[in-house]
Amino acid sequence: MSSVLQTVLDGRWAAVRDEVRAQMGEVQTDPSLPTEQYRAQIAGYVAELAKTGRPHQGFDPAYGGGGDVGGVVAAFQMLGHGDLSLLVKAGVQWGLFGGALQNLGTARHHDRYLRDMMDGTLLGCFAMTETGHGSDVQHLRTTATYDAATQEFVIDTPEPGARKDYIGGAARDARMAAVFAQLITGGTSHGVHCFLVPIRSDAGDALPGVTITDCGEKAGLNGVDNGRLVFDGVRVPREALLNRYADVAEDGTYSSSIENETRRFFTMLGTLVRGRISVAGGAGTATQKALTLAVRYGATRRQFSDPATGEEVVVLDYLAHQRKLLPALATSYALHFAQEDLVGRMHDLQKFSEGPLAGPSSDTAPVQDEQLQRDLETRAAGIKALGTWHATATIQACREAAGGAGYLSENLLPQLKADTDVFTTFEGDNTVLLQLVAKTLLSDYARKVGKLDLLGKVRFAADLVGGEVAERTGARSLLRRGDVRDRAHQRRLLVAREEHLLGSLARRMRAALKPGVDQFAIFNAAQDHLLEAARAHVDRIVFDAFADAVDRAPSTVRGLLELVLTLHGLSVLESRRAWFLEHGYLTVSGSKALASGVNELCAALRPHARDLVDGFGIPEQWLACPLLDGEQQLTTEAPAEEAPADLKAVG
Amino acid sequence: MSSVLQTVLDGRWAAVRDEVRAQMGEVQTDPSLPTEQYRAQIAGYVAELAKTGRPHQGFDPAYGGGGDVGGVVAAFQMLGHGDLSLLVKAGVQWGLFGGALQNLGTARHHDRYLRDMMDGTLLGCFAMTETGHGSDVQHLRTTATYDAATQEFVIDTPEPGARKDYIGGAARDARMAAVFAQLITGGTSHGVHCFLVPIRSDAGDALPGVTITDCGEKAGLNGVDNGRLVFDGVRVPREALLNRYADVAEDGTYSSSIENETRRFFTMLGTLVRGRISVAGGAGTATQKALTLAVRYGATRRQFSDPATGEEVVVLDYLAHQRKLLPALATSYALHFAQEDLVGRMHDLQKFSEGPLAGPSSDTAPVQDEQLQRDLETRAAGIKALGTWHATATIQACREAAGGAGYLSENLLPQLKADTDVFTTFEGDNTVLLQLVAKTLLSDYARKVGKLDLLGKVRFAADLVGGEVAERTGARSLLRRGDVRDRAHQRRLLVAREEHLLGSLARRMRAALKPGVDQFAIFNAAQDHLLEAARAHVDRIVFDAFADAVDRAPSTVRGLLELVLTLHGLSVLESRRAWFLEHGYLTVSGSKALASGVNELCAALRPHARDLVDGFGIPEQWLACPLLDGEQQLTTEAPAEEAPADLKAVG
Repeated sequence: MSSVLQTVLDGRWAAVRDEVRAQMGEVQTDPSLPTEQYRAQIAGYVAELAKTGRPHQGFDPAYGGGGDVGGVVAAFQMLGHGDLSLLVKAGVQWGLFGGALQNLGTARHHDRYLRDMMDGTLLGCFAMTETGHGSDVQHLRTTATYDAATQEFVIDTPEPGARKDYIGGAARDARMAAVFAQLITGGTSHGVHCFLVPIRSDAGDALPGVTITDCGEKAGLNGVDNGRLVFDGVRVPREALLNRYADVAEDGTYSSSIENETRRFFTMLGTLVRGRISVAGGAGTATQKALTLAVRYGATRRQFSDPATGEEVVVLDYLAHQRKLLPALATSYALHFAQEDLVGRMHDLQKFSEGPLAGPSSDTAPVQDEQLQRDLETRAAGIKALGTWHATATIQACREAAGGAGYLSENLLPQLKADTDVFTTFEGDNTVLLQLVAKTLLSDYARKVGKLDLLGKVRFAADLVGGEVAERTGARSLLRRGDVRDRAHQRRLLVAREEHLLGSLARRMRAALKPGVDQFAIFNAAQDHLLEAARAHVDRIVFDAFADAVDRAPSTVRGLLELVLTLHGLSVLESRRAWFLEHGYLTVSGSKALASGVNELCAALRPHARDLVDGFGIPEQWLACPLLDGEQQLTTEAPAEEAPADLKAVG
Repeated sequence: MSSVLQTVLDGRWAAVRDEVRAQMGEVQTDPSLPTEQYRAQIAGYVAELAKTGRPHQGFDPAYGGGGDVGGVVAAFQMLGHGDLSLLVKAGVQWGLFGGALQNLGTARHHDRYLRDMMDGTLLGCFAMTETGHGSDVQHLRTTATYDAATQEFVIDTPEPGARKDYIGGAARDARMAAVFAQLITGGTSHGVHCFLVPIRSDAGDALPGVTITDCGEKAGLNGVDNGRLVFDGVRVPREALLNRYADVAEDGTYSSSIENETRRFFTMLGTLVRGRISVAGGAGTATQKALTLAVRYGATRRQFSDPATGEEVVVLDYLAHQRKLLPALATSYALHFAQEDLVGRMHDLQKFSEGPLAGPSSDTAPVQDEQLQRDLETRAAGIKALGTWHATATIQACREAAGGAGYLSENLLPQLKADTDVFTTFEGDNTVLLQLVAKTLLSDYARKVGKLDLLGKVRFAADLVGGEVAERTGARSLLRRGDVRDRAHQRRLLVAREEHLLGSLARRMRAALKPGVDQFAIFNAAQDHLLEAARAHVDRIVFDAFADAVDRAPSTVRGLLELVLTLHGLSVLESRRAWFLEHGYLTVSGSKALASGVNELCAALRPHARDLVDGFGIPEQWLACPLLDGEQQLTTEAPAEEAPADLKAVG
């Protein structure tokens, strides 16, 4: 059973995943080492990784890359089953630094640096975040001022808040930084652009004008050398500008294929979406590992006796314990397939078939690609936010489910917790990301309205005044009658929530368009509404991705996966049942059926819990820890094999 | 304003708190030290602490103690503003080991050990938890078999799961362990009792028959030396039994003032309630520190611009940021006063006025005291569970609210997170504790029924069949009409939830009394109901404790505190509004008013956020970190003083 599940979960890049599983067999990291030693160990494995040729797979075939963008992300994610410092350190080199070079640079940069970057002989870092600006990166303060006399850019940190901060790779290893700075030429600022700036000599010393400091110990990820960069009149040649979207001529004339400064900046950022997608994936695999540990422990640990038999009860047989782990496990399945779908979309969009310059939303790309790119970015933001929050909450639950043993480093859960914690705020703070999602949804909504014919607009306007789509069609009373365990009905509820929240949000936001109003106050008063609208959208697309995967699955596991989907749907709906009640989409009995449904599905999936976590296919050597010692005893005492339950009986 | 708040928060033991604040000025710990050095540092401070005479204050005056049980817990909690390893290490010595000695021992133990324990010249540990039994400590497997021939107990670890595990102090410092073991004499087991067992020589070597191993690195609290103990035929004299509740005569005859084995065991455990109360307090102060850091940072950090002014907005002015921090701040206030009330109840109950043997639920105590003790234990369990979960969630939110800076060790939040994480599962796993609370509530409920006269029983039986108390009195429709921001109405809702959940739980549990039923299945199917009933009870008592404190507060801050209480009440009710809707206690508009009420109260309290965290009175040197560097800039640029808002306008 679990091997079929693994095939389904491994999906499109199964071969890549298996390759990484095999490679990981030789990786033995030790996060308990003193920081400098651990950093050296991780840097060593990054060099080893480069030798495998695996990172090359994500880059332009014209330069010796493999052109397999999706495969490289799938491979990257797998490192989350192993060491997350290695995952992040590799992500800095090939995802962030390499991604900027590939996607924002042009032939002159690719010719010179791409191969060395892939080979790991040119180690780089990604210097975007500043002490004063993390979420609002459009307003970074670092400057790159063009000096026409020498045909150079001068990189400066004009104030303490403009210091580059938390930069992975900066403290120890990086020789070059992709520095995001306000481009100034002829006294005019043209917004943030990216520059290749050497920061260290081959010997490892900071170059003149560059001050490098160490961020020191962090909650986790201490194998990554995060540092700070301050620039004082650092000169780089004109060609250091990664000029795919904009360039400065020798005389200082600025030109860009994208007129609007904001649009240009976000187009550039958009090409870097892979980083965000990779973080979501890493959070997912780390969560799978925590769930595997907690479920397997819970299936052997016994505590308190059954009064009838006197036998001690396996803790995973307690409803409260199931409720801690099994809905989270179901949601991890859902997010896994949503991630798989996301990676596939990115892969199909970021083809290298059009030559070295092609890639995400190339400036010559057709409009359709632009929309696909926009959709990809929205999905990536949403899935990253929900996925990393899910990781934080679930790994915490797994830690608690393992009691005192879960607090010991030897049992791996503390490291998983500590390492993944930052995922909720890096590569975009989750709250800010959900805001981005909502804003995109709002403008799509407005565009949809713009395309309506006259009658449509009248109807829509009436709707904006008086009611909502669902109400108008009488759908609400229909919704109140469905079975909350039915897939189609679950989806209808999720869609109704998504549409209702977005429609009512659009109405509130219309107030901000009137002249003279305090736009910030209107926006701010609706911020919780806005975030919930975004979440509703992401909940629906995650559900759809999982449902699609269930339909594609072989019949041997389809019934089981359908149950997992049902539990996921029930638990999402249960967490939002107050909203459904408040807005008339659920009756009281329907609402109560959600809680009892979750309980019933927990019971139904309990016998399959081990299979479900085994399906993640995490190599045993990455799970080995004293927490699972009880399993050996179990195997000796009684074979753990269970008769396959009749899935129909609970479906 | 904040100094008045501090006076109110400091409460009954204000002088003790100030004394600790002054003492802490000299404490400079460094959790980033290598583990052995950090352990040594913490052990050194424990020795320093002993010299201050402060720990002595909690013990019997007849032996040089101060008899101030409440004061010593208040002092202990204050260490949570500083270093949590020091807090836990001190808690092991004087709370757990000292508590067992004081409360389970008699004159023969007190004469010999109490003074040395207080002075810290006898370092001890508390060896209860075993690898195989953590929550279900009644079924520990370590044995203490009486050998009448030599008048000794023989301590043994009969199986791997009986190994004492996670024992603070065992790995490095403790010379003696309070070992909980099944007492066997004449071939009969009498249940778990506590024995004083020397484990290390003065030189620090393990004594013969004792195998000590180190639990190694943990997620946090690495200044505490947790270890494992295995006993192989370790002989201790008959007098090593802490014999306050039971004794073994020279000939091996067992005697106890408490006939029932289970009742005896839980009476013994009950005397150790101080440990649980102390953990709740430590979680509270750690949470206050995290909130102080996050609120102060949020009040200086700016990100994104107001479109009207172009000025960057202070992040604490965003609704989403307020919602992350301010309801949690309000609940921290509520829990602080609930804790203060709890410590006061314990102090008043655990008086030493009756001589050296008196203490918690002395076997000669009147019945009234027994009920008070039972109530104290229930409150302690409930407040510990809710308080430590609140700590984990809130410190996490604070970390995220500080973005990347919150992930750096230099900004203190990672250590707070890591150190407090184990609080949810030690001194009683929270889920198990809430179960205890519910079981006590159920038996109190049954007793109440037992005391009813005939008419009352008939009414009650009718009630059990058909409805609930609230419904019978028509209270439900009344409840639907109230203002959810009104204190009395909030309380009515909390009480209705508590009574309804307990009443319906009692009805479900009655099914388990029928002969032939599967008791475990009935219990297990209702486990989520049971846990929610416990939570409802604790929510109500926490609310009451806060409300009482508001009423006692000086008029200058009473209005502000009333707003904090309102926000706390709203956020508890908001989190459970689905239940209120499902059970007819809230109308849709009442339910929606909860969310808008939370938003309004966040806005109302925003100008007072700094005062509210300053009220916790955390010494500046314990907060100093780069995260707060922005404040200096603010002070230079513009004085942070704000005009006192008109509280009435928002009340």
